[in-house]
Amino acid sequence: MINCFGITRSIMSNASWSQKDQNRKFKNRLNPTDLKIAYIGGGSRLWARTLINDLAQSETLSGDVYLYDIDYSSAKKNAKLGNKVQDRGEVPSDWTYIPVEEREDALKDADFVFTSTQYDPKKTFVPDLEITKKYGIYGAVSATIGPGGMLRAMRTIPVYRDIANAIREFCPQAWVLNYTNPVTFVTRTLYEEFPDIKAIGLCHEVFHAQDFLANLVADYYDVEPPSRNEIYINVKGINHFTWVDEAYWNGEDLFPLVDWYIGQEGTVREYSPEELEDVSGFVDNNQVTFELYKRYGILPAAGDRHLAEYAPWFLRGNMPEDLNRWGVKRTTSDFRSTHWDSGEEEIEKLLRGEKEFEIKESGEVMNDIMKALAGVGTFLTNVNLPNFGQVKGLSEGAVVETNAWISEGTVKPLVSGSFPRPLQNLIQYHIQNQETIIEAAFGGGDVDYAFQAFLNDPQVMALQPEIAREMFAELVDTEREYLEEWDLKNSKVLDESESFS
Amino acid sequence: MINCFGITRSIMSNASWSQKDQNRKFKNRLNPTDLKIAYIGGGSRLWARTLINDLAQSETLSGDVYLYDIDYSSAKKNAKLGNKVQDRGEVPSDWTYIPVEEREDALKDADFVFTSTQYDPKKTFVPDLEITKKYGIYGAVSATIGPGGMLRAMRTIPVYRDIANAIREFCPQAWVLNYTNPVTFVTRTLYEEFPDIKAIGLCHEVFHAQDFLANLVADYYDVEPPSRNEIYINVKGINHFTWVDEAYWNGEDLFPLVDWYIGQEGTVREYSPEELEDVSGFVDNNQVTFELYKRYGILPAAGDRHLAEYAPWFLRGNMPEDLNRWGVKRTTSDFRSTHWDSGEEEIEKLLRGEKEFEIKESGEVMNDIMKALAGVGTFLTNVNLPNFGQVKGLSEGAVVETNAWISEGTVKPLVSGSFPRPLQNLIQYHIQNQETIIEAAFGGGDVDYAFQAFLNDPQVMALQPEIAREMFAELVDTEREYLEEWDLKNSKVLDESESFS
Amino acid sequence: MINCFGITRSIMSNASWSQKDQNRKFKNRLNPTDLKIAYIGGGSRLWARTLINDLAQSETLSGDVYLYDIDYSSAKKNAKLGNKVQDRGEVPSDWTYIPVEEREDALKDADFVFTSTQYDPKKTFVPDLEITKKYGIYGAVSATIGPGGMLRAMRTIPVYRDIANAIREFCPQAWVLNYTNPVTFVTRTLYEEFPDIKAIGLCHEVFHAQDFLANLVADYYDVEPPSRNEIYINVKGINHFTWVDEAYWNGEDLFPLVDWYIGQEGTVREYSPEELEDVSGFVDNNQVTFELYKRYGILPAAGDRHLAEYAPWFLRGNMPEDLNRWGVKRTTSDFRSTHWDSGEEEIEKLLRGEKEFEIKESGEVMNDIMKALAGVGTFLTNVNLPNFGQVKGLSEGAVVETNAWISEGTVKPLVSGSFPRPLQNLIQYHIQNQETIIEAAFGGGDVDYAFQAFLNDPQVMALQPEIAREMFAELVDTEREYLEEWDLKNSKVLDESESFS
Amino acid sequence: MINCFGITRSIMSNASWSQKDQNRKFKNRLNPTDLKIAYIGGGSRLWARTLINDLAQSETLSGDVYLYDIDYSSAKKNAKLGNKVQDRGEVPSDWTYIPVEEREDALKDADFVFTSTQYDPKKTFVPDLEITKKYGIYGAVSATIGPGGMLRAMRTIPVYRDIANAIREFCPQAWVLNYTNPVTFVTRTLYEEFPDIKAIGLCHEVFHAQDFLANLVADYYDVEPPSRNEIYINVKGINHFTWVDEAYWNGEDLFPLVDWYIGQEGTVREYSPEELEDVSGFVDNNQVTFELYKRYGILPAAGDRHLAEYAPWFLRGNMPEDLNRWGVKRTTSDFRSTHWDSGEEEIEKLLRGEKEFEIKESGEVMNDIMKALAGVGTFLTNVNLPNFGQVKGLSEGAVVETNAWISEGTVKPLVSGSFPRPLQNLIQYHIQNQETIIEAAFGGGDVDYAFQAFLNDPQVMALQPEIAREMFAELVDTEREYLEEWDLKNSKVLDESESFS
Repeated sequence: MINCFGITRSIMSNASWSQKDQNRKFKNRLNPTDLKIAYIGGGSRLWARTLINDLAQSETLSGDVYLYDIDYSSAKKNAKLGNKVQDRGEVPSDWTYIPVEEREDALKDADFVFTSTQYDPKKTFVPDLEITKKYGIYGAVSATIGPGGMLRAMRTIPVYRDIANAIREFCPQAWVLNYTNPVTFVTRTLYEEFPDIKAIGLCHEVFHAQDFLANLVADYYDVEPPSRNEIYINVKGINHFTWVDEAYWNGEDLFPLVDWYIGQEGTVREYSPEELEDVSGFVDNNQVTFELYKRYGILPAAGDRHLAEYAPWFLRGNMPEDLNRWGVKRTTSDFRSTHWDSGEEEIEKLLRGEKEFEIKESGEVMNDIMKALAGVGTFLTNVNLPNFGQVKGLSEGAVVETNAWISEGTVKPLVSGSFPRPLQNLIQYHIQNQETIIEAAFGGGDVDYAFQAFLNDPQVMALQPEIAREMFAELVDTEREYLEEWDLKNSKVLDESESFS
Repeated sequence: MINCFGITRSIMSNASWSQKDQNRKFKNRLNPTDLKIAYIGGGSRLWARTLINDLAQSETLSGDVYLYDIDYSSAKKNAKLGNKVQDRGEVPSDWTYIPVEEREDALKDADFVFTSTQYDPKKTFVPDLEITKKYGIYGAVSATIGPGGMLRAMRTIPVYRDIANAIREFCPQAWVLNYTNPVTFVTRTLYEEFPDIKAIGLCHEVFHAQDFLANLVADYYDVEPPSRNEIYINVKGINHFTWVDEAYWNGEDLFPLVDWYIGQEGTVREYSPEELEDVSGFVDNNQVTFELYKRYGILPAAGDRHLAEYAPWFLRGNMPEDLNRWGVKRTTSDFRSTHWDSGEEEIEKLLRGEKEFEIKESGEVMNDIMKALAGVGTFLTNVNLPNFGQVKGLSEGAVVETNAWISEGTVKPLVSGSFPRPLQNLIQYHIQNQETIIEAAFGGGDVDYAFQAFLNDPQVMALQPEIAREMFAELVDTEREYLEEWDLKNSKVLDESESFS
Repeated sequence: MINCFGITRSIMSNASWSQKDQNRKFKNRLNPTDLKIAYIGGGSRLWARTLINDLAQSETLSGDVYLYDIDYSSAKKNAKLGNKVQDRGEVPSDWTYIPVEEREDALKDADFVFTSTQYDPKKTFVPDLEITKKYGIYGAVSATIGPGGMLRAMRTIPVYRDIANAIREFCPQAWVLNYTNPVTFVTRTLYEEFPDIKAIGLCHEVFHAQDFLANLVADYYDVEPPSRNEIYINVKGINHFTWVDEAYWNGEDLFPLVDWYIGQEGTVREYSPEELEDVSGFVDNNQVTFELYKRYGILPAAGDRHLAEYAPWFLRGNMPEDLNRWGVKRTTSDFRSTHWDSGEEEIEKLLRGEKEFEIKESGEVMNDIMKALAGVGTFLTNVNLPNFGQVKGLSEGAVVETNAWISEGTVKPLVSGSFPRPLQNLIQYHIQNQETIIEAAFGGGDVDYAFQAFLNDPQVMALQPEIAREMFAELVDTEREYLEEWDLKNSKVLDESESFS
Repeated sequence: MINCFGITRSIMSNASWSQKDQNRKFKNRLNPTDLKIAYIGGGSRLWARTLINDLAQSETLSGDVYLYDIDYSSAKKNAKLGNKVQDRGEVPSDWTYIPVEEREDALKDADFVFTSTQYDPKKTFVPDLEITKKYGIYGAVSATIGPGGMLRAMRTIPVYRDIANAIREFCPQAWVLNYTNPVTFVTRTLYEEFPDIKAIGLCHEVFHAQDFLANLVADYYDVEPPSRNEIYINVKGINHFTWVDEAYWNGEDLFPLVDWYIGQEGTVREYSPEELEDVSGFVDNNQVTFELYKRYGILPAAGDRHLAEYAPWFLRGNMPEDLNRWGVKRTTSDFRSTHWDSGEEEIEKLLRGEKEFEIKESGEVMNDIMKALAGVGTFLTNVNLPNFGQVKGLSEGAVVETNAWISEGTVKPLVSGSFPRPLQNLIQYHIQNQETIIEAAFGGGDVDYAFQAFLNDPQVMALQPEIAREMFAELVDTEREYLEEWDLKNSKVLDESESFS
């Protein structure tokens, strides 16, 4: 029958609606104390620990977690760790972790599917960062948009087409919580491949905007920062380029507080490269946020390093100095590689008992979402879903990020309004590039069509046409082992390029 | 700044958005214990008592209620009654009722405005029922759609243009809760006249669908009926022609229960005129509901007597027998008149102490809405609002009814999906007729243009063109004292008609 | 490459556009003196003679006409007649008629395909007329809309899906000129089945409006009636419910002439049944046209008998008297049957030489269209095509009728504007019903879904629900030999009905 | 009544349609031999001579040309020249040129209005070119898009609001032929200010594409180049960024010829700065055209220097060398200034008889357009008009360029299809920036809102945010005498900038 995600069916074709499709059967509700979770990418070096941590603390939910990964040994380690944590006396929940060698065993009749996968960063992230830099493009993250993000999308889309098909086969009714980046492309792929999928894309960037506002309240009123849930914000946009145009705490409009904050001496300032020298991971000084807020009058709700890639004035001039001025440091190849490696070491230590797994507030909301879907309370949070009315002025069917109301058996995005025209234009421009990549992938892996989106990307638009073509060809050539589903052979663009071997 | 109702600004013109418009000022939140409510139509014979009843029971809300009515003496009586109820010891709230002679005194800086007004039914409802019947049109209610409903709209729109202007002048930030019928037309008028108004149209027809489902649960599982709030339904459509395509209780899909119920012996049956003879007010036997459900596969969520007017197959054939067969009885002129009169008697008795005002569960949700808007919790309920994405396939800006999530300072409708094409067609057809009436009213009171909508109404489409014209002319002529804002003089349609004096 | 009909590709999916699809090859232009025409329905009793007549007169076009018909002997007779006419000395063109037994032989590499087919009227038209009448529905033509028209659509759609597939296989580049009714449904089917087809639906109803205006000019200015091509009109709507909102002769606005004409004594009047008694075929007294013009201010451009079915106030009341009043006579079963039979007799006479084939001005424009497409001049005429922008406010992709500019290798509809809202509503309502039938046919032959459109039809909306169901079931039952592609077995609607055996 | 330009009425509000608006009156047709033309900008140094040249050759048209200019003496000179030309014996037409000091005298009851105006290039074009260059932006023309084009739009919009109002007052029925650049902005302004205006924006860039194709035909078939009118192309896009996706000659597809041509040795090559050294005016080597054609598969139809500004990859790298490589030379300040001055000298010579006015084929189509509108034949050409369906995927109401069919009393654009998504994205992105400038101008002259469009421009997106702000401020400051209608005082952007005095 038509549920929230009937939405998607209609996106694809209103024509498909027909009474006959509606084979309604008595369906048992999810049983909150006996859930089956399938975790695709269950050998994950980092995210698995977030899951273990959160599930350990869920008082109302219990069940089995099936861990599947192409690297089975990693899945086994994570299972061992998970079960070890569950064995502790103080843990209120009852979860069992089970590593599996066949994906089907994880998916079969699962209630929830979590997806969080990643290729070897040394062979993917690192060339994305290094090659683009060589051609003069300094995308601050290079992982969800811009040339690096687009390559990542090209690598990832085929993987998720395959996953979507497996879900259709083994657990079409499951709720899919996708954490894999680029969230927009991945979520869009899941729906394009299996329109009736019940998937949501999740990301915590927006939470930082809530935390920023909570701290403002604390600052201004000299009180303890309210909890994130007490800060109501109206969110909209696309993942990593989300915006807030309403913010309330206790019914009070928080925008005047933002103005007050920005008006204070020293809040808006430049940074020197030296100040950022010691940063090894991510850093966020809100200067890009403030600049965009001053320009458009509504508040960005993502990290500065992401914003600078979608609105790339900040990447122009002398790099990296002119980016650093905004308090932003480009993600380093080093960080990308060692982050992955250190994840492996860490789990060994935890398993060997050299280090105690620390159960803490993760800031993630997966428990709240599962509870609400299983009929325990309701929950409002931001999610990535195909646009079926939540944001006016952005393409129908494109994946957008807004609040959604989650309740027993359903996820309903909120009607979140429109954008001022210049911002709408910028966001929609990115959406159309994203949709082009999706079309290219689903249309036989048409590399030349994907390149048209690549060329259109505002980061790439800084290059002469043939330079852009060389950069594209070199990226494709370097990462070709992950691009097997693409029709590289018949590409005219690659053929014209010297960089393509 | 852009709040939920910035929605409407955008409907009218995306062009108007500009950073400069956003004069954000520190604004104090609503104070739940010191609210000012303006009640337009405060001399109301019936609805005032619902308000008095509900406010009396609100544990978290208190303040002043200003009653304004063109019939000041009625407002005074209601105030007296309200204060009398508040004086009772057991009442947990603290409200004071104040009748005023000038509308401005009620509206000035109000936090909430309630609207519930009505003309003398003997001069309006009664001719709407009697004249249409004379021409062979047996609209079951004749008050929100069909020829009678359209005339009522023509009478009411000018009144609410005036109210919208007064709200803009005296309390532009107030939340407006409209209870006046035809809810669609009235809410639409408020937004067309004052696009930044923060108004919602409210109606309880949908609650009955929830009650019906709650009773099904009780029946089937042999348990106590769950409370209405435990039944989650996805609502969409236009007021009095709303539909449910998802229904859950405790996470369980309720549609199979509907099928089970309909399949039972004796549930679907015909009624004879005799069975309905003693009904003086409204009656609902769900037979129209069941027929429409069988046809379209989704569940209507309004009383049968309303449904039969929007999908008027049920009004064809021999009247009233062929309507009665569906368990529906046409509203009588008698009931309309005496209902109004008995309202007056009743209040006298209550004031004289001949009868005790009984405080009871009203089933209305105004307290919950006011609490949520004032920052006390959040609330989900169905509301009528301009379509800004909540229902796909219905005109943008037209007033639709869906769930909305209400929180501190904002009302956000839920993205509620689309309709199967044949139903979408029928609903959209009514919407376009409604929009035509609105255009006609705002376009100088163009009667002939309004008549084009009148002719299009499927009830009216049963008549030869000149018969329809005569009926229209007679209705207009009879009720002309309420149609002063319309340009009757220059009408070619009226000019051609013998019925127009 | 993208030609006019790339339009349709885009309708179906903008996504499909990709540079790679564009295998441009040198293609020879059509050779006007050596064309191959395939005529599907080439055994046609009437329309074949129009073709023979017109081709005989074409000075610039010559070639071969392949006649295919399931009734091969009829095709043979027509071929014989065609060649006989061509043998006459005075004929300026050089055409050879060739009857074929295999459709493939006709279609193979054809330059043009003409379609004009019909089932035995005694088994189709006649029950459409008689059964509906029995249930009280007096559709004036009962052949393109209303219950009869919908049944005809249900019979015809599967046939044209098959033809579209054959065209794709044997002559995908051919220009298809469809003359088969219901033109809207047939043209829509061709595009739904084969989106790259280059088909136009043709109908001469609009020409009558031009003739009417030409006569007005003659009347008013006391001159010879100008030729139809001198009357420029802006046409829009759906076939048989088309409208004119601009009309010029020599640069002069003709609407004031229409007003002048209507204002004259005796022009607008009622007709008695007796006045129409002797009419055996079609009659048109413009009274429905005038009434609609007075109501909406723009001029209908189709015969009154068609208009009355799309705007069915004229069919209400006492039938047939209340229809006759408008000067309209319902098409009789008799006429339908004998018209078909007399066609057969006529051809025998012509072949036996008992009667001379008279070459005359047919009023059709097929020669002009073929000439323009073959690069001989350009031509402007009204055509039926999927809406890709030509009429605002009507569904994209639905088949609408407007002017189109025809030139070497392309057909480009004109942007023809929008409708006043009440008319747009009525037309769009019919379109949605038509689209529902199309969906039902393409969605596995879903009879129950088709019935939802049937119920919505304003002619049918005059009935109680179960009466409508009985009428539908009886029609389906009677004509089931033509409905084999429909899934009658699984229909709940038919199952509930007593009329379905 | 609704004519082609009723289109625009509907764009603004479908709501406004009402039968009553339609005061149809007998209206005399245009008399081709007694036309009144008002020429706003009639003192024009260059374009006036084109008009004089063309009118001199019109065999079917005659009448009076009223020349109005803020520089009356220039208008007088042009009138003198015009009349001098008309006095020649061989001239077939009969036109009288009349200079007027009051605009009203020109406009009063005019049949046609020509607009072609320009500010002193030394104070406008030159700073547009020089200031942007200083900041590193090398827009090749700097006159219709990019920072220079946007400033020109900001200067010109207020002028044309005033002209539109004057037309409404003095000749609301006149056909307005606008030749002033930026054509998109000017045409859009005319319609926004006076929605019922009958204006078309004209430009000859598209003709070059036809000429290029005609030469291809000549080349390939070794024949004389066919005339431009024999080359049918389907045109679409926005002015100066128009595209051709169908091209026929004699019914033959011309795209394979384009492929043949590009494939030839030496056709595609780089240019050196030296090769362009001697170019003083405009030069076009089609290299940008070829590159874009190879990328998108459809053919650009504007000069390379324009294309490079809309798709600004060509402006990146080392300037001007990297632009010169494509055979494009940036317009020089010198050329802009002297072009204007030489225009003045020239006319003096012509008036003094030192030089004979040479009557020649201008390549413009104004005669053909006027003839068709006056009822002498019909004509197909490319025009700029608000989008009402002609191009799918571009904003409704935005000014787009497509073919239109022109006939007695009407201009009807052709439905011209859609774009491949990546191109649609780029074009629509420019449109939204243009619409933002229009909104800013009509919304009280909101400079900061205009700056949001300025920032979004892909040429400007090459700069850091504050550099873009400085450039904007310096442009505004330098040209402030032409920006009096803008609210410079309240701008935050200007206030933040050091360049704004």
